Amino acid sequence: MHKFNYLVVLFFIGFQINAQKIERVEPPNWWAGMKNTQLELMVYGKQIADYKPSIENEAIVLLKVVRTENENYLFLNLDISKAEVGMFTINFSKKGKVKTTFEYELKSRKTNSEKREGFNSSDVIYLITPDRFANADKSNDVVKKMNEQGINRKNDYARHGGDIAGITKHLDYIDAMGFTAIWSTPVLTNNMYESSYHGYAITDLYQPDPRFGTLEEYIQLSSKAKAKGIKFVMDQVANHIGLEHWWMKDLPAKNWVNFQKEFGAGELVITNHRRTANQDSYASKADSKLMNNGWFVSTMPDLNQKNPHLATYLIQNSIWWVETLDLGGIRQDTYPYPDKEFMRKWAGAIMNEYPNFSIVGEEWSLNPLLVGYWQKGATNNDGYESNLTSTMDFPMQKAIVDALNEDEAWDKGFVKMYEGLANDFSYANPKRIMIFPDNHDMSRVFTQLNENLTKTKMALGYMLALPRITQIYYGTEILMNDTAKPGDHGLIRTDFPGGWKGDKVNAFTGKGLSKDQKSMQSYLKKVLNYRKTSAAIHNGKTIHFAPKDGVYVLFRISGDEVVVVILSKNEKPIKLDLQRFEEIGLDNKKVKNIISDKEFTWKESLKIDAKGIILLTTKL
Amino acid sequence: MHKFNYLVVLFFIGFQINAQKIERVEPPNWWAGMKNTQLELMVYGKQIADYKPSIENEAIVLLKVVRTENENYLFLNLDISKAEVGMFTINFSKKGKVKTTFEYELKSRKTNSEKREGFNSSDVIYLITPDRFANADKSNDVVKKMNEQGINRKNDYARHGGDIAGITKHLDYIDAMGFTAIWSTPVLTNNMYESSYHGYAITDLYQPDPRFGTLEEYIQLSSKAKAKGIKFVMDQVANHIGLEHWWMKDLPAKNWVNFQKEFGAGELVITNHRRTANQDSYASKADSKLMNNGWFVSTMPDLNQKNPHLATYLIQNSIWWVETLDLGGIRQDTYPYPDKEFMRKWAGAIMNEYPNFSIVGEEWSLNPLLVGYWQKGATNNDGYESNLTSTMDFPMQKAIVDALNEDEAWDKGFVKMYEGLANDFSYANPKRIMIFPDNHDMSRVFTQLNENLTKTKMALGYMLALPRITQIYYGTEILMNDTAKPGDHGLIRTDFPGGWKGDKVNAFTGKGLSKDQKSMQSYLKKVLNYRKTSAAIHNGKTIHFAPKDGVYVLFRISGDEVVVVILSKNEKPIKLDLQRFEEIGLDNKKVKNIISDKEFTWKESLKIDAKGIILLTTKL
Repeated sequence: MHKFNYLVVLFFIGFQINAQKIERVEPPNWWAGMKNTQLELMVYGKQIADYKPSIENEAIVLLKVVRTENENYLFLNLDISKAEVGMFTINFSKKGKVKTTFEYELKSRKTNSEKREGFNSSDVIYLITPDRFANADKSNDVVKKMNEQGINRKNDYARHGGDIAGITKHLDYIDAMGFTAIWSTPVLTNNMYESSYHGYAITDLYQPDPRFGTLEEYIQLSSKAKAKGIKFVMDQVANHIGLEHWWMKDLPAKNWVNFQKEFGAGELVITNHRRTANQDSYASKADSKLMNNGWFVSTMPDLNQKNPHLATYLIQNSIWWVETLDLGGIRQDTYPYPDKEFMRKWAGAIMNEYPNFSIVGEEWSLNPLLVGYWQKGATNNDGYESNLTSTMDFPMQKAIVDALNEDEAWDKGFVKMYEGLANDFSYANPKRIMIFPDNHDMSRVFTQLNENLTKTKMALGYMLALPRITQIYYGTEILMNDTAKPGDHGLIRTDFPGGWKGDKVNAFTGKGLSKDQKSMQSYLKKVLNYRKTSAAIHNGKTIHFAPKDGVYVLFRISGDEVVVVILSKNEKPIKLDLQRFEEIGLDNKKVKNIISDKEFTWKESLKIDAKGIILLTTKL
Repeated sequence: MHKFNYLVVLFFIGFQINAQKIERVEPPNWWAGMKNTQLELMVYGKQIADYKPSIENEAIVLLKVVRTENENYLFLNLDISKAEVGMFTINFSKKGKVKTTFEYELKSRKTNSEKREGFNSSDVIYLITPDRFANADKSNDVVKKMNEQGINRKNDYARHGGDIAGITKHLDYIDAMGFTAIWSTPVLTNNMYESSYHGYAITDLYQPDPRFGTLEEYIQLSSKAKAKGIKFVMDQVANHIGLEHWWMKDLPAKNWVNFQKEFGAGELVITNHRRTANQDSYASKADSKLMNNGWFVSTMPDLNQKNPHLATYLIQNSIWWVETLDLGGIRQDTYPYPDKEFMRKWAGAIMNEYPNFSIVGEEWSLNPLLVGYWQKGATNNDGYESNLTSTMDFPMQKAIVDALNEDEAWDKGFVKMYEGLANDFSYANPKRIMIFPDNHDMSRVFTQLNENLTKTKMALGYMLALPRITQIYYGTEILMNDTAKPGDHGLIRTDFPGGWKGDKVNAFTGKGLSKDQKSMQSYLKKVLNYRKTSAAIHNGKTIHFAPKDGVYVLFRISGDEVVVVILSKNEKPIKLDLQRFEEIGLDNKKVKNIISDKEFTWKESLKIDAKGIILLTTKL
């Protein structure tokens, strides 16, 4: 009796809603002509599970309707292999009567969308934290409806007002510097109560944060960049969401988020961060579970990618952004934290749609074994076949900094770079690994190198000549530092001078920069613009010579082009015996200094006046 | 004219010798019934190349006779596939007349010689520097004909008188301690002018140094060891010889030794020791050549294994010792220094004769990528297929010492061991890798661990429970140290007390040992004797738990046997929550302390009183 009454009440409530309100259908649109011809729609609306969906289009087959424990969700599995571009109608019926409808669009794909090329070793990527780069639109600095209010440039963990339009505005600068790609840290909605500026606590996977700009502006940034030949790389996060994500108020399924019970019960389970558990054949089940299912931090619920609907949601979300933004690559955050079998499928699904695309995953490890494990083509003893084209070279980053900071010795100094690079023998595809002097989570390279301009030039010049994709964080070109409080995230992400109206220093124009800053900026501009068209650097053969007498020499060779990197730690002038490099075949060849444009003939020896880097080329 | 006269003179000299004296035929004998049915004899005698060799035995085919630039050598290639055990005659003729003959023996192989089993993860190898272990035969202390004379126990780099008989004499001790194999550093002739005690400057590859003993004594040591179930492992050197090797007075070929011209001209070319050049796909040819062909030190000429006759000589020499000494394994010195293609063939030839054999190569590197590269079964990108069954775990050795010396932190202390062991995922065969607390070239582990008994027990106990072959250097059981001058080779190789008549302390009997020394010795004896029959340690599954609150726990599991290693750095008593280890299935099981024999039931928690190691087993 009691139960019956309850149902009657529910029925009347349902009836009263009348036209059922569909709050969300995600992805918000799709495209005809994708390789994967299945599409799963997440439909969200109050008690939507009580309705029976149907499609008013004969070319589209509703394969399956999935209901979860939460009656506010429906998952519709569609076969769209025969569908054409255009709108179609989804009906939601009860007792045979259509109660509400939803118009869904299949868009037309851009020409050659599937052939898009991702970033590769010909690219140098400019990494930007958009809140800290340039504020081109003051009107979006404060958005009333958001949980975190106001901007405060004096607080390193508050929002500073930088936005998407700020990046777009300075594309000319980025282009002129010689960068060929941009990776912006996430700009999707982070409706968090604090530290929303960093972007990694996403609360809506389909909307840019209004304080960064509109979807239209986001698309414009990417398309304007593309028009300049600059690839746009999106930063995505499959491991977690922000605690204020709309799902957290009404979870699509009980197992949508890991350890949610503990969360619900007020007990928070944080990951043990023991990332080796992903590879370690001796890892305990307890540690593995905690590693992959624990929350990254208390404000970022850990997604359970083993739920197949969440898995599909995340894959489709990534592909939606590739199509929508016409992407030139994806950077995936915290790569070893989600379920690794899901990550294999996720990257595989994307690479299946775009075989020439690139995805770089963040494995913050100094161990080349772990970095190499995740790269596509690696032969792993456990049989794991990754689909990730690119990994990050944390081992070489550290090797280079250590090498430059240490005094020379048998096992110290340059040998760290030399032996670090030798580890390339173990990688499936070294050229597809990304090297960087620093990033948004690390102390600035200028600080790491004790604010030494010469060493910073040595580090950058060497990295840019390696068989690698290079990534450079905004501000490195003007020696931005965090020396006052090394490692402080807020300080690392200092505002780029000139990005805000009224800035006394303007790095875009050079106004107010110190001599050293100008020197670094013009040096980097020279190197980057040389690198842009250097086949030797993009795809050439690599030969290096073991460090000797404080000098380390590396060659990149492609056809007639030879790029020579000479690093010397000798403070006093030395005469470098060039006969040791006989096998390169440069004898009596004219070589040009890439920075000074001066030419000379390669003979028995070369005088090197002081500690530093010499970049030479035979491309005359 | 001038030339003609010279030849005539030579002819008469040859004639005068009459019965040509064959000084050496090597190998000095061979065996019938080997898998490889070819045999190459190096014949040495004045102007022997002027003679025509022939075999007086129809079952043996002289396939080829090779002459080099040096007329004192002949290489005879024989097909002995149809040969039977026994002697056969080699005739050396001139103008159709037999001028001299040589009787060569094909011996009968021991039963199941080809099935011999090499050392493996069931073994713990006792490494001995024979000059410093025990002097059982005073009569061989000084041998008149040798270049280095006298013994002086007060000089760490002089000979001390230890010998082969000294090892044989103490086999009971070694056996009782629980060791299952012996690796003695080389005892072949080192007729050098100084530092001949260490044995790595071999001057005759077929003769033990008379100061160590006779070939008979050598065979006796190995056979007596075998009778006790102790495998005998020979230390071999393919990279170099001692400068006083008889070859150096009359090189078999111009290219027998690398850089000999430079040597002859008084200019010495030493290796650059840049071992990564073996793997590094970017290494310059110049560096690679210098690495592999440069001399190890000035008193050790570098052999050119690219000379096919030298290659065959070295391979046959190794196999000769396997048969002669009935070996249970080979340790190959300086593995990355010889030509790596030769090393592949060398190890391949041995493993072809003895498929269950073991060879461990010394690659002194802290980089698991390099250690792994050399192991049989490794999938190397350059296609290199090694035949080396075992490599040495320098990376884990350092990880363990660092882990125990450091204070606990997120990335320090036990995590070094935990993450170090996790690297096993990358090895072709981790169980066939050799771990060691130290060796004859390294500071003693007691010194490395700041003379801390507890830490030394922790290091040893952990190593002995790992999925590894373990090697322990003589004297580690009594805490021998080199603290007075850390790293000093002479001091590292201190005399084992009790090995010399009149020694005040005797570690064989325990007389005069300190409390700590006795404690260590009895601890090790307990662990080793447990390990001897522990299937869990030999071949069990490994599960370890990430270090937490200063405790690191590792399990080895095989059938009903579980071995538990609990390492704690907590100085004060703690209560270890055992529920974390639920997946092992020990709840309510009786466990026994391997050291104290005390039993208890595995329940919710375990009280740990102090810093140290707890070794438990369920084998009751």
